[in-house]
Amino acid sequence: MNNIENIRHSLAHLLAASVLKKYKTAKLGIGPSIENGFYYDIQFKNPIAEADLAEFEKEIKNLIAQKLEFKGEKITPLKAKKLFAGQKFKLDLIKEFSKDKKDLTIYKTGEVFTDLCKGGHVKNTSEINPEAFKLTHTAGAYWRGDEKNPQLTRIYGLAFESKEELENYIKQQEEAKKRDHKILGPQLDLFFIDEKIGKGLPLWTPKGTAVKFELASFARELERKYGYEHVETPYLGAEELYRTSGHLDHYSSNMYAPINMDGGKFYLRPMACPHHIRMYQRKQWSYKELPIRYAEIADYNRYEKSGELMGMIRVRKFQLTDGHIFIAPEGLKEEFKNVCNMISEGIKGLGLLDIVSYRFSKRDPKNKEKYFKDDKLWNHAESIMKEALDELGLKYIEAEDEAAFYGPKLDVQAKNINGKEDTLFTAQIDFLLPQKFEIEYIDQDGQKKRPVMIHRSTIGCLERTFGFLIEHYAGAFPLWLSPVQARILPISEKFSSYANELKSELLKNNIRADFPEPNETLGKRIRAGEMEKIPLLIIMGEKEVTAKTLTMRRHSDKSQKEMTISELISLIQKEVKEKK
Amino acid sequence: MNNIENIRHSLAHLLAASVLKKYKTAKLGIGPSIENGFYYDIQFKNPIAEADLAEFEKEIKNLIAQKLEFKGEKITPLKAKKLFAGQKFKLDLIKEFSKDKKDLTIYKTGEVFTDLCKGGHVKNTSEINPEAFKLTHTAGAYWRGDEKNPQLTRIYGLAFESKEELENYIKQQEEAKKRDHKILGPQLDLFFIDEKIGKGLPLWTPKGTAVKFELASFARELERKYGYEHVETPYLGAEELYRTSGHLDHYSSNMYAPINMDGGKFYLRPMACPHHIRMYQRKQWSYKELPIRYAEIADYNRYEKSGELMGMIRVRKFQLTDGHIFIAPEGLKEEFKNVCNMISEGIKGLGLLDIVSYRFSKRDPKNKEKYFKDDKLWNHAESIMKEALDELGLKYIEAEDEAAFYGPKLDVQAKNINGKEDTLFTAQIDFLLPQKFEIEYIDQDGQKKRPVMIHRSTIGCLERTFGFLIEHYAGAFPLWLSPVQARILPISEKFSSYANELKSELLKNNIRADFPEPNETLGKRIRAGEMEKIPLLIIMGEKEVTAKTLTMRRHSDKSQKEMTISELISLIQKEVKEKK
Repeated sequence: MNNIENIRHSLAHLLAASVLKKYKTAKLGIGPSIENGFYYDIQFKNPIAEADLAEFEKEIKNLIAQKLEFKGEKITPLKAKKLFAGQKFKLDLIKEFSKDKKDLTIYKTGEVFTDLCKGGHVKNTSEINPEAFKLTHTAGAYWRGDEKNPQLTRIYGLAFESKEELENYIKQQEEAKKRDHKILGPQLDLFFIDEKIGKGLPLWTPKGTAVKFELASFARELERKYGYEHVETPYLGAEELYRTSGHLDHYSSNMYAPINMDGGKFYLRPMACPHHIRMYQRKQWSYKELPIRYAEIADYNRYEKSGELMGMIRVRKFQLTDGHIFIAPEGLKEEFKNVCNMISEGIKGLGLLDIVSYRFSKRDPKNKEKYFKDDKLWNHAESIMKEALDELGLKYIEAEDEAAFYGPKLDVQAKNINGKEDTLFTAQIDFLLPQKFEIEYIDQDGQKKRPVMIHRSTIGCLERTFGFLIEHYAGAFPLWLSPVQARILPISEKFSSYANELKSELLKNNIRADFPEPNETLGKRIRAGEMEKIPLLIIMGEKEVTAKTLTMRRHSDKSQKEMTISELISLIQKEVKEKK
Repeated sequence: MNNIENIRHSLAHLLAASVLKKYKTAKLGIGPSIENGFYYDIQFKNPIAEADLAEFEKEIKNLIAQKLEFKGEKITPLKAKKLFAGQKFKLDLIKEFSKDKKDLTIYKTGEVFTDLCKGGHVKNTSEINPEAFKLTHTAGAYWRGDEKNPQLTRIYGLAFESKEELENYIKQQEEAKKRDHKILGPQLDLFFIDEKIGKGLPLWTPKGTAVKFELASFARELERKYGYEHVETPYLGAEELYRTSGHLDHYSSNMYAPINMDGGKFYLRPMACPHHIRMYQRKQWSYKELPIRYAEIADYNRYEKSGELMGMIRVRKFQLTDGHIFIAPEGLKEEFKNVCNMISEGIKGLGLLDIVSYRFSKRDPKNKEKYFKDDKLWNHAESIMKEALDELGLKYIEAEDEAAFYGPKLDVQAKNINGKEDTLFTAQIDFLLPQKFEIEYIDQDGQKKRPVMIHRSTIGCLERTFGFLIEHYAGAFPLWLSPVQARILPISEKFSSYANELKSELLKNNIRADFPEPNETLGKRIRAGEMEKIPLLIIMGEKEVTAKTLTMRRHSDKSQKEMTISELISLIQKEVKEKK
């Protein structure tokens, strides 16, 4: 255990000591170090106030100043029971820890405080920087995480080695909060989640839907460019389909409970591969026609535990810019490179080049449960993928045990604002499903052969990509993605008819413009437009109406420029086309 | 019973007599008249051959020629049992019919045949035109429709009063078959249904998807024009949502079985109204902002019995060009008229003007189960709708007991090629759901008021509309809807590079063009293009390459015309814009 963890753990003890000083009857649970800090679970007779935290903080600083020593000691279970009499949760722990009759450990902080503890502390409180910790907030936590047990109060603290680190961390958290898509989404009226409809089932508002339509068009344009045909398939599938594919064997914990119908079971599909396979199998194909590339903005359903749901980034129903390629084995490597190029183009178009990294996700040969069994096929698929990546010169890390059950993956990873890494886009090689479904094509020699499949997403799942984009741009989308591209703000009502004329002209040119009633001062309306992060505010008064011009104010740099309507339209069309 | 039904019923008896003449041990079930003809269910020892039908037909004609009389007679159950000894199905019927101990009726055809029968016959076979009937086919049918009973052979016949009527009907049926979307869909590779995925769950192929995308764009353009905002909402909803809406009380027989998740029940939504209501309720609205109009190509799920499924027209999962309007009661009538105008514009755009009719669907006040209880609201809603329709001068019929459970409907009806009428588009007034969900807006006086809702579809359900369009156009879609708009057919391989150049030029202009390898004679390739009903075939040889032109051949009138590439592009763009 490195020193910062010792510091954090020691602060948890000092917190407990401070609490007991003020609330003699408080019952202590446990107090570990965690990422960036520590906590202690404590049962109070009455709820504590926010002011208490400041008082505890003061007392902790006082204890630190006393340069108290931390000392461990072995103790028999019997003695421990006496020592912690009255501390019911500690007695619970003693009972559990002493099952094998061995001695327990306690840790003393000077003569001030004793805790049942396995250790991991500083030697002396003087090692703790009193300016580098902070108690932040409280939350409820069931004893031992079991909701049948009493609920304790968890007091959270941050702790670092230096004051600077603490301040940086707090600043970064505040910045993250400003970008948090879960906050910005409803605030900018882009999406919302309604528990009456269901957890993990977001609703796209008119503004969010405008962005979604742009993302969908972008994906489809890319797909057309790379030779895909669009299909549409249902989000349901009969049991037999997912038996054949192996999803029910390898993936059922991510699937919803089945729907019973006409004596059979139907599943909300977790993936669309079987549907695209059946699409391929509707006719016989010649080698001349391959590769067949199907793309679909496909509805996916995944069972996620309610505690793991997160805004738009982890949801229970989403739309993947999905696609499957059926190709003769000889063409696999080149086609996989095409796929990587298409994905790169998508990343660039979305402006995410700086925040993504590539991960080559392989199976863990020891994990027999998760992956289908065929070492030869696995080795072949992984080596072809590696060759393709190396020939493209992509920088990637290798990750074991992150493959799909049917094959290795190239994952495009991105960290969200809370530092958690998620997969945004993916491309996978699959020799398994073609076998399971007995997919075929007729080769040059007239013989039936088996194609290979590539599973890939163009710009990932629209929900997740949207969540990342909100955070990446802090809600200030580039022009082409903005739900409202231009807001029209006449200086006063007097110029409303000119404003309306302008609005129609913009709408006619497929520019998303709005013109709210000018019932506030111009200053207030400009500030509202800034708050809503609208890229272009279009201002007009006597001067502009006379000259048949307008003044354009940019959100990004607050610059203002006078121009004609047609100049504005050309400028917007150009920037939209260039995805600026 | 009119005479044609008597003729049909009598022919059923003559059919049974003819069967017994050849197959003495055949067991007779029942033989009623049906629409356009008759049938008889009969158990044979061995399957009969197609040639048997011609033989039966001959014998029926023979019986007709004998001018046999049909005569009814009362008979005791006991006598009946003796008379039909050996006819086990007749004995079954006798047992059932004689429960109240009354006499039964039998009908004799001359001395040739006797059947257990309540009557409804011609007096003499001379009333039957021997040239106006035809035995058509056989099918399996369980005795009394119960699959636990033995399966009989149902022999079907057509019958009319005149030979002309019979011939017209057969011709019309053949024509219908050519237009049948269930046949044309897979034949033109527009969609297919795969039992491995599930009955009633069609898959849209690349060609079908191209049509779907056009339909979706058309609907969205119309919606934008009429002031709708687009939203996207999930196809799942928690139980509570459909409790509140009343769907679980009034509509559950059309809903799928629930999915259990996290201790609660989720439903695949049968309608999206609750989702759009929750969208509205995400914020507070002022009277100045109303009407709020939400549109969505919304996923709907309906449980339909497998016997009632029909191609794309009756399915278990579909996408409705759905929308909901929230409006102050004062504006209701005018807004309802707007909705009717939008729907008319949709019908016109799709070219369906000639085949639709309007139905004003009201509740049946006596049907207490189906409709919510509030006479005053029902009368108000129905009278406003009637006023709106009359002011628009729409011709409509009134239909009782066809309303939605929450309010009256204007239904746009169309007959499919089999003569069955279906609802294509709909607009509904609803005072109920606003109450149930307690929807509000702030009125001019600062008071909370309740808006009214209009539920409406723009161009109906995409699946069903597509099915109708296939049949209406017999697969030869107008240019704007065609999956392939232009096929490029160079006279030989020699002109492939010019052909490829042309193809890229067309694709660049968003024209759906293809260029199959010229490995057949031009004549064969033209015929294939005609079979695929491609609106424009683009032919080119030495002459065109030299002159930098092309020859355009139209599917509709087989006319040919030479023109430049840019003339072709302008022509296509103009016709697409005009939805020709």
